[in-house]
Amino acid sequence: MTENQTDDRPLAGIRVLDLTRALAGPYATLLLAGLGAEVIKLEDPVGGDLARENSPYLGKDGVTVGRSDPDDVSFSHLTRSRGKSGITLDLKHEAAGEVFADLVRGCDVVVENFTAGTAARLGVDHDTVREINPRVVYLSLSGFGQDARAGSKAMDVLVQALSGVMYTSGEPGEPPVRLGIPVADMLAPVFGVIGVLAALERRHRTGTGDWVDVSMLGALTSFVAIENWGAMAAAGMEARTGRTVHRLSPFGVFECKDGWVAVVAVHDKLATGLFAAMGAPELGADPRFATRDARVAHAVELEARIEDWSRTCTLAEALDALEARGVPAAPVRTPEEALTDPDTLRRRESVPVVHPVHGPSDLHTAGIPITFTEAATGFDDVLPLHLGEHNEQVYRDLLGYDDDRLRELRDRGVI
Amino acid sequence: MTENQTDDRPLAGIRVLDLTRALAGPYATLLLAGLGAEVIKLEDPVGGDLARENSPYLGKDGVTVGRSDPDDVSFSHLTRSRGKSGITLDLKHEAAGEVFADLVRGCDVVVENFTAGTAARLGVDHDTVREINPRVVYLSLSGFGQDARAGSKAMDVLVQALSGVMYTSGEPGEPPVRLGIPVADMLAPVFGVIGVLAALERRHRTGTGDWVDVSMLGALTSFVAIENWGAMAAAGMEARTGRTVHRLSPFGVFECKDGWVAVVAVHDKLATGLFAAMGAPELGADPRFATRDARVAHAVELEARIEDWSRTCTLAEALDALEARGVPAAPVRTPEEALTDPDTLRRRESVPVVHPVHGPSDLHTAGIPITFTEAATGFDDVLPLHLGEHNEQVYRDLLGYDDDRLRELRDRGVI
Repeated sequence: MTENQTDDRPLAGIRVLDLTRALAGPYATLLLAGLGAEVIKLEDPVGGDLARENSPYLGKDGVTVGRSDPDDVSFSHLTRSRGKSGITLDLKHEAAGEVFADLVRGCDVVVENFTAGTAARLGVDHDTVREINPRVVYLSLSGFGQDARAGSKAMDVLVQALSGVMYTSGEPGEPPVRLGIPVADMLAPVFGVIGVLAALERRHRTGTGDWVDVSMLGALTSFVAIENWGAMAAAGMEARTGRTVHRLSPFGVFECKDGWVAVVAVHDKLATGLFAAMGAPELGADPRFATRDARVAHAVELEARIEDWSRTCTLAEALDALEARGVPAAPVRTPEEALTDPDTLRRRESVPVVHPVHGPSDLHTAGIPITFTEAATGFDDVLPLHLGEHNEQVYRDLLGYDDDRLRELRDRGVI
Repeated sequence: MTENQTDDRPLAGIRVLDLTRALAGPYATLLLAGLGAEVIKLEDPVGGDLARENSPYLGKDGVTVGRSDPDDVSFSHLTRSRGKSGITLDLKHEAAGEVFADLVRGCDVVVENFTAGTAARLGVDHDTVREINPRVVYLSLSGFGQDARAGSKAMDVLVQALSGVMYTSGEPGEPPVRLGIPVADMLAPVFGVIGVLAALERRHRTGTGDWVDVSMLGALTSFVAIENWGAMAAAGMEARTGRTVHRLSPFGVFECKDGWVAVVAVHDKLATGLFAAMGAPELGADPRFATRDARVAHAVELEARIEDWSRTCTLAEALDALEARGVPAAPVRTPEEALTDPDTLRRRESVPVVHPVHGPSDLHTAGIPITFTEAATGFDDVLPLHLGEHNEQVYRDLLGYDDDRLRELRDRGVI
C-alpha cells in the first residue's frame, strides 16, 4: 500500500490482485512489483502459499533446514513475496465472493496460476472478474494452457522434457540434460507480464481488459523454435548440440586444470589468436586448420589439440592468454560466482536477500534485470512475513471495511 | 505499414524503428510485431543484417545449404523479420542524420543492439533520439549493459558460461553443459520488451519516453538467481543438479529402451503408483523406500531400481504404465516433436515457416506464446525479402519524400 506521490517506477498506480502460489505465478507478480505495481497477495487463511514450507529457511540463526522460530521464513517465500502486501481470504468460504468482488473492483490486474479449471470452481475465474470489473487484465499461467486436457501435470521437469530443450542440451549419445534452473516455470511468467502490459496498452484505447493465457510448454517451446531444427535435420546436423559446435569450430567449452573455459574463435583472425595463445602459432599454417572450412572439417582433431593445451593451464592462465590475443573467452562460473559479480550487483540484476526483521544476509536472489534512465525499479519495503499481515491495511484502509465487518470475517474464518 | 482500421492487436498504433541485427535485437522487435506494433527494420544498403547470410536458406528448391536463387532467403532472416517492413539507410553517410531524424519523429520506440558505444558513434544513440523526439522509448540490448567495459564480447556461449547456467546443468563430476538453445540471446529481448511496454505505460502518465537498458548477462543471471544457491551450498547441496534430484527422489529422467522418460513421484501416493507401474508394489513396504525421507536417503539405490525397470520398457510402455497409475510423467521429446505438437500448433506457440514467394514450408518456428481473448496476435503479411524492399512505402508514403529526394538519396548511396 505505498502511497508514494513521487513514485517514478513505470507501473506506479497499477494495482494487482495476486492469487498465485509456488513459483511461476509469484515470479510474474514479483516482476510487476519491481516495476512499481502495487501487489496484494491473497492466501488461504490456513497454511497459505505452500512455498512458505520450502526448506531452507532464513531467520535469526541464518540459514536453517528446519523452522524453529516464528520469524524463520522460507527462502522461496522471502524472495518471491518482496514488495507485496499479504492478505488472507478463504476462497472456498460462502462469504468469500463478496470480499473478492470488493477487491476486484479496485484492481487493474488479476493473476492466477491454479490448475486449469480450478479458478472457475472457486468463482475467481476471468468470467466472474470481468462481470465485476471489465477493465481488469486477467492473467492465467498454467502448464499447457486454459484449453488443455484436464489434469495435465505441469511440473517444470516434465515441461522441460516435452519442450525439446532437454534433448538439445548434451552430447550426442549421452543422456538428455535437465537444465539446472526451472526455465519452464520462469519463462511463462515473463511472457505473462508481456501479455499483461500489452493488454494494459490496449486498455488505453478500448477501456476494457482482457484474458491473457500463457502456458509453460508454449513459452519454452517458442524459445526452442527459434532455432532451425527442421532445416538442420535436413542438412544432417545433430539436434543434440554438445559442449562444442563443430560447424563453428573452434567454438565451445574446454577443460582447464581447475575449471572450464568457453572459447569462440570462429574466424581466421580469432583462430590465429587462439593458436598464438596456445603457444602453437604454426597451427595457423597447417592445412588442416588454416581456413574456416578446414577447421570445421577437422573439428574433432582441433578440439583435442585445444584441450591438450587448456588442460595444462589454470582457468586464469587460459583466460589471460586468450584475452591478450583478443580471443573471446569466458570462465564457466558457478551460480554463486555469477550472483556476486560486481557489475551484476551494481546493476541490481542480482540483489542481496533481506529478512524483514533480521536485515540483509549474505545470500543473493533475482533482481529486475531492466535498467531505466528516467524511471526507477525496485521493491517496496513490504513483505507478508506472517499470513494476513496486511489484512488491516487492505480490508480497512483500501476497501473501507469497519471493525464489525472485520471481526465478523475473522470470526467466520473467511479471512 | 498496415493501415488496418480494425486491427485489434494490443500494440496497434505503436511504431517501432528497428536498428537491430543478428538474434537478440530482432527477436525483441519480432515480439513487438507479433503483438501488433508496426516495425520498420533499418539495414545498411550494402549487405544489410548479417543474419541474411546464415546458412541454411529456404527457396524454390526447399532447404539449401548455399544460395542459388535471388529469392533464397536465410531461415534466420525469414523467421526473425516476419511482420517487419525493411528500409535501407547508411548510418555512416553524412546525409543519414536528417533522414534518421525524420524517421524518429514518427516513431514511438527505437530498438538497437549495437556493441555498447557504437550507437553514439553513429549518431543514433538515446541522447540524439531524445533530442529529436522526447516521447520515444529507446531500448538498448547488449551483452553486459550500457555501462560495461568496452570491447566485451557478448556471444551467447560466453554469457551462458558467465551466468552460472552451464555449471548448474549436468552431473556432478561431468563437464558443464552448454544449453542447446541460445537462451542468453533470447532472454534479454524478452525482458527488453517488458521494459519497453512498462515505459510506454509510464509515458501515458508523464508524456515522455525513457532509455531501457537490458544486458544478456543480467537477464540470464537473474533467472539463475531465483534458486537459493547460497542456502543450498550452506546445506551441502550440489550446484551441479544432474538429471535426477536426490532430495526429491524419485524425480528426474530415466532411460527406456528407445528413449527417456521424465518422472515425478515425490509423495507417498505417487511413489506407490510408480512401484505399481514397475510391477514391484512390494517396494512400498520396503523400509528403504516406504517414506519420503527413506526414499531420499536411498535415492541412488531407488533410481537404479527404477532404471532397471524403465530399460525393459519402450518409452510408450513406460508412459502408459505410469499414466495408468496417475504418476506424472512425460517423454523427453526432440525439438521437432515439440514444435509439431498439435496443441502447440493450435495455440500458435509454434508456427509454420512461410516463404513470402513460395508459401508455407514444412518447417516450424517461434510463434507468440501469449493468447488473448479479446485482442489478436500475429504478423502482418510483410517481410523485407530484398534489401530496401519497403523504401518507397516508408520514405515516400510515411515521410512524404518526393521523387527528387528519393532519387538524390539513392544516387548518393544514402539509402
